Amino acid sequence: MSFSIAHLGPPGTNTETAALAYTQWLQQSQGQESILCPYPSIAQTLQAVAKQEADFAVVPVENSTEGSVTITLDTLWQLETLQIQKALVLPITHSLLSYAFSLKEIKTVYSHPQALAQCQNVLETYLPHVQLVPTASTVEALQYLTQDPHNENNEKNGAIASSRASELYNLPILMSSLNDYPDNCTRFWVMGLEAATSGTYLSLGFTTPVNEPGALVRPLAVFAEREINLTRIESRPTKRSLGEYLFFIDIEGNAAQPHVKAALADLPQYTEVLKIFGNYDVLSISYLSQ
Amino acid sequence: MSFSIAHLGPPGTNTETAALAYTQWLQQSQGQESILCPYPSIAQTLQAVAKQEADFAVVPVENSTEGSVTITLDTLWQLETLQIQKALVLPITHSLLSYAFSLKEIKTVYSHPQALAQCQNVLETYLPHVQLVPTASTVEALQYLTQDPHNENNEKNGAIASSRASELYNLPILMSSLNDYPDNCTRFWVMGLEAATSGTYLSLGFTTPVNEPGALVRPLAVFAEREINLTRIESRPTKRSLGEYLFFIDIEGNAAQPHVKAALADLPQYTEVLKIFGNYDVLSISYLSQ
Repeated sequence: MSFSIAHLGPPGTNTETAALAYTQWLQQSQGQESILCPYPSIAQTLQAVAKQEADFAVVPVENSTEGSVTITLDTLWQLETLQIQKALVLPITHSLLSYAFSLKEIKTVYSHPQALAQCQNVLETYLPHVQLVPTASTVEALQYLTQDPHNENNEKNGAIASSRASELYNLPILMSSLNDYPDNCTRFWVMGLEAATSGTYLSLGFTTPVNEPGALVRPLAVFAEREINLTRIESRPTKRSLGEYLFFIDIEGNAAQPHVKAALADLPQYTEVLKIFGNYDVLSISYLSQ
Repeated sequence: MSFSIAHLGPPGTNTETAALAYTQWLQQSQGQESILCPYPSIAQTLQAVAKQEADFAVVPVENSTEGSVTITLDTLWQLETLQIQKALVLPITHSLLSYAFSLKEIKTVYSHPQALAQCQNVLETYLPHVQLVPTASTVEALQYLTQDPHNENNEKNGAIASSRASELYNLPILMSSLNDYPDNCTRFWVMGLEAATSGTYLSLGFTTPVNEPGALVRPLAVFAEREINLTRIESRPTKRSLGEYLFFIDIEGNAAQPHVKAALADLPQYTEVLKIFGNYDVLSISYLSQ
């Protein structure tokens, strides 16, 4: 039976590229077939797994230039605990798609806010006078290349999207490698209902008692005392009151290792709500054979 | 001589309301006159102070629903160290401005992405089928109430903005208190070139040596060991490489207090780059007399 894998659609988004890489990995490592199911938002992608409409969801977690994808973290905290199956790291290269023949013809550039933000210095240098218009996905931006309510001359817009989107929708690339930082990468998580027990990383989220000195340091020290490396910490507001936070942390270790097991046993005395998102490995996607 | 205070404009943005409150506080507490200088972006607001075009900049730092304003943190890190003069906490109440007579006439809602995000549940409940379109500020959204390239019927759009914007631009409020969380607040910082020495809060930013177990815990423990309360921690990517972060923390204490002084003296041995943004007090803006 095929697995169904939910992702932010439509086809051609960077999340779809990550999801495709995961289907290839499933095929190659386990002989497992899977099909992709595009959803209109990240929240709906995760809800599809929680409601058992899909087996897995591939969602962006953080980008090396723009940081956390907050809607992913906020939705994961609100849902019954989903489990991380795998982390996927995808190099992100943005291209400027347009029917224009030169940059100076372009008046408006459309793209997802993350893509616009990852290219802001290059845009300021090469296209200082264009209007930047955010869209729901990089692929949604493509519709403005051929139909634009803002502009009667259809050829004067640009959209920032992937070279895969250019191929899929047969649209010309006017400029490539638009991202400000050459090592621009996005980390995705594959989320499912069942815990993966193997893997060298472990992620969890928690709230702490508020307004106590050291309230945050104590849960972190639980890991530091055991020489467990903390690779990431991210705070999000609880949304109840300014100054109340929840924390997401990633550590290097497996829950079956005695020192990690001991840390996880210690942790609840310093946290209020604690959610363990499970163990997982990282798959670096250096190319995608199509 | 008047102080000049840079803020995200045009008049009617929530940042302008915070800046106005600060001018009133300067007038009442110090008899100091000041004028407001609107800028088109948060980055340009901060650069105006760095370039000495303006004396102070008022910038949003975090919202209780949507979290950090990342462009503020990223720009502060890149500039030569500006100093925090004051924190301002402003309750944010969003209104739906429109010429429509009922909600069901509305097809499109325009606003700043932060405002759209702070109202997403209410919008899904009351306006499930509208298209949400992001704009550069809540005030920029207002132009679509009277001129909309997407729609020939000018009365069918809505914009999420403040009730002050409704008064300033003489636009009707169709629905008020649109925000999902009633205690929706935004914290602003007033930034200047000179350090304020008084105040009960202290903010700083730092990077740590990468990939060392406990690299983040050590700088935090410097404060915890001295019973200094850490009120906030925020991580941002260094943008160089996925998994490299810089950290912004707020503590309760003044740099002149012996235990805080000792902590600050200890800190550099655990950090790579360290920026102290100074001491400040918090001004809660409960109303604004106009």
